[in-house]
Amino acid sequence: MNKLSESEKAYIAGFLDGDGSIYVKLTANKTYRFRFQIAPYIVFYQSTTAAKFLGKVQKIIGCGYMRNRNDGISELIIGDMNSLKSLLNSISENLIFKKEQAKLMLKILDLKEKVQTIDDFYKICAEIDKFKKLNYSKKRTVVSKTVHDVLEKEKLLTP
Amino acid sequence: MNKLSESEKAYIAGFLDGDGSIYVKLTANKTYRFRFQIAPYIVFYQSTTAAKFLGKVQKIIGCGYMRNRNDGISELIIGDMNSLKSLLNSISENLIFKKEQAKLMLKILDLKEKVQTIDDFYKICAEIDKFKKLNYSKKRTVVSKTVHDVLEKEKLLTP
Repeated sequence: MNKLSESEKAYIAGFLDGDGSIYVKLTANKTYRFRFQIAPYIVFYQSTTAAKFLGKVQKIIGCGYMRNRNDGISELIIGDMNSLKSLLNSISENLIFKKEQAKLMLKILDLKEKVQTIDDFYKICAEIDKFKKLNYSKKRTVVSKTVHDVLEKEKLLTP
Repeated sequence: MNKLSESEKAYIAGFLDGDGSIYVKLTANKTYRFRFQIAPYIVFYQSTTAAKFLGKVQKIIGCGYMRNRNDGISELIIGDMNSLKSLLNSISENLIFKKEQAKLMLKILDLKEKVQTIDDFYKICAEIDKFKKLNYSKKRTVVSKTVHDVLEKEKLLTP
């Protein structure tokens, strides 16, 4: 991503606080070593009628891809680890509403890079659970307990 | 309102671009000289669960009042002319999405201060109409034509 000026950092932080989201998805996926995928995202939203403005934000930060949803909302999505880290490190001091989410994601990105054992993985999942409260999230169905249940059952089945 | 640092200007601009609104209401009100009230607003939104953060924005800018709507959304509303002017002059250069709305409101505030004749008033109403397109507004029912119709009818009735 681009190196941001102080004003750009503050602007992007304000925009993210106003109409963005910082979250980590936990999704069942059997092709993964620990049977679940950890997918961190920063997303900026805007009505599709104003999507060209999201393009300007994309140009400022120099990362992310655009997607038009079916409900008239467009998204600018940042999902790759390096961009997420750089972006969060650039703007987290300027965030007001989502400072906690930014810190939590940085912690999770760090743990994710170092994961080796199943216990390391459980530890990340426990951290991901904390987003539920920070984001007032109601839709989160896969939580650390789900991961535990699945992986413990698998252990029993695999002698 | 407060004097903002460069970072604060950029943050507030980003937040307004993301989750705020710049608009001018035109409302029938017989107690007014020209039978309609021109009410300009800048509003910042946030879910009421996160209303304390709006309080932080209020503290930064040093103006506006808070209101909890019935639908779980809280608003930070700036409606007085002096605060609107100062805020717009502070942040308009940092706006990306809503720069046009900011310029239009500044123009309207200026015209509003100088209004003397009914034609001056019509001119402001014509400017207010432009918000409909800029804000993709569907709810605007009172437009300059409504004002014309009412005031021309009144002229005919008043000999």
